[in-house]
Amino acid sequence: MYTLLEAQSLVEKHLQTLQLPDSPRELYEPVRYILSIGGKRIRPALVLMSCDLFSGALESALNPAVAIEIFHNFTLVHDDIMDRSELRRGHAAVHTRYNENIAILSGDVMSSLASRLMNMAPGAVLHEVHDIFTRAAMEVCEGQQMDMNFEDEPTVSEEDYLKMIELKTAVLIAASLKIGAILGGASVKDAEDLYEFGRNLGIAFQLQDDLLDTYGDPKLIGKKLGTDIVDNKKTFLMVRALDIADSSQKEELTAWLTRKKFDPEKKIRAVKQIFDQLNIEKITLEKIKAFYIMAIDNLKNLNRPDERKIELFNFAEFLMNRKN
Amino acid sequence: MYTLLEAQSLVEKHLQTLQLPDSPRELYEPVRYILSIGGKRIRPALVLMSCDLFSGALESALNPAVAIEIFHNFTLVHDDIMDRSELRRGHAAVHTRYNENIAILSGDVMSSLASRLMNMAPGAVLHEVHDIFTRAAMEVCEGQQMDMNFEDEPTVSEEDYLKMIELKTAVLIAASLKIGAILGGASVKDAEDLYEFGRNLGIAFQLQDDLLDTYGDPKLIGKKLGTDIVDNKKTFLMVRALDIADSSQKEELTAWLTRKKFDPEKKIRAVKQIFDQLNIEKITLEKIKAFYIMAIDNLKNLNRPDERKIELFNFAEFLMNRKN
Repeated sequence: MYTLLEAQSLVEKHLQTLQLPDSPRELYEPVRYILSIGGKRIRPALVLMSCDLFSGALESALNPAVAIEIFHNFTLVHDDIMDRSELRRGHAAVHTRYNENIAILSGDVMSSLASRLMNMAPGAVLHEVHDIFTRAAMEVCEGQQMDMNFEDEPTVSEEDYLKMIELKTAVLIAASLKIGAILGGASVKDAEDLYEFGRNLGIAFQLQDDLLDTYGDPKLIGKKLGTDIVDNKKTFLMVRALDIADSSQKEELTAWLTRKKFDPEKKIRAVKQIFDQLNIEKITLEKIKAFYIMAIDNLKNLNRPDERKIELFNFAEFLMNRKN
Repeated sequence: MYTLLEAQSLVEKHLQTLQLPDSPRELYEPVRYILSIGGKRIRPALVLMSCDLFSGALESALNPAVAIEIFHNFTLVHDDIMDRSELRRGHAAVHTRYNENIAILSGDVMSSLASRLMNMAPGAVLHEVHDIFTRAAMEVCEGQQMDMNFEDEPTVSEEDYLKMIELKTAVLIAASLKIGAILGGASVKDAEDLYEFGRNLGIAFQLQDDLLDTYGDPKLIGKKLGTDIVDNKKTFLMVRALDIADSSQKEELTAWLTRKKFDPEKKIRAVKQIFDQLNIEKITLEKIKAFYIMAIDNLKNLNRPDERKIELFNFAEFLMNRKN
């Protein structure tokens, strides 16, 4: 069984062999750039680990795995334009380093390149693999649109918020696992269990992201805390807080959300104080745990020997214990 | 044999049956919008006509045909952002009607939707169809990048210009014909001949576009002439003119290309006068004819009875005689 580290290393090695055209340089250099500035390669590693549950022959899964990674990076390039984020993984975002047109177009070419690599899956499962992939690809766009819509809405329901992170984050993790399973020769039921495992784990993962941005350890996280609060992000924390706040707390939160000029540190302190009053850290931790338990149950249900599942259990635990 | 009109009508009918998700409304409304404001449906009609050359059963080609049309519209949506074009087919461009973020994201979802529809091709040809499609999709991005690069270059060689329009315009027309042929059960050689037919015809088509913008009949064209001149577009006309101009003509052209403030009508008259002195209309017409003849030769080479090819000959002739 491959560990996460081993799977990540296989992905990295295969990424190095990827032959990108040289010309036009302006189009392909940003593709090389975004793939070179890191990223944990979680999704492609999951394709391999999931395939590995059913079959030791990972060759057929390498190109689809890299396809998922390239697709994921394409969404980051376009999201950074839309969200006006100047940094990605501590480096300049593509539209900052080059320009917006180049970021749009090199994102587009990555999307087609991802399809092209996915098309290297074996013929017997090609239709199914493309089907899972393209559905997830559309859903990721739907999630990003919901996220942008939330910016303009005074409040967001918990249900809508969870749907948004399911689409924006979880379905691609779920699709990675399902595609790996199909490539490994899994039964329909097993592939579906792995999809659900990924979906629940992906939601937990995103909720944890929200939590760490406010309640993480700044030394471990490697960036300043509270950026979501400063940016008025409708995170799970804010969504729940707005929902359960009393009228004076809600008034204060809304005032911070609408104020144009403010001292960032003061805003973080004030909003966090309300979160603390409302027990938001605990509420979020409980929600994360609920999704984590569902994910573990999906994995337990999976009709494979326990010793083959161990690395995915380890992976889930690793994700849940992460501090950054 | 289906005529172009009949094929266009089949495409239109199939497009009407397309089930787009309703939600998020902000994401899918622009998709419906761009597909509703017209377009001649040339590419999907060619998928059907090419399939029809080999097989009367067009059902398997309908989804791939619509996939190509949706992909083409996605490129228009993103190109209009990059080119800062406010109008498309006489209507507001997507980024003008909605906003830039929505245009980026609804373009992205169209790209994945196109892949999803292409994935409905029959299993036996699925790999090949996706392969042709994704290669063309990447090449279209390469062509758009070359086109953007040309804006900043003082001169462009004829060879580079022809390569750019081949990638930006001709390969998708070529791929449409090849995909149709494969779906109809064509031999490798016949599919390749149809690709070449489309490639040559596509180049001729784009050259004609360049020509009509300066030398067309304004009454038939339905828009003002000379917009390419005003916008400093490096069209075939400008590329050739810069190449063969004497030093005083070249100086005047360069002056018009760099001047920030000018009377548009005066600029069009002055540039066109130099084009006239250099015989650019005739040079362009000859180039168009050369590609047209190559296209016709490709079609003649095709190993199908003449009576089955007649509609594609008609189509080529129709394109070459168009006045708008």
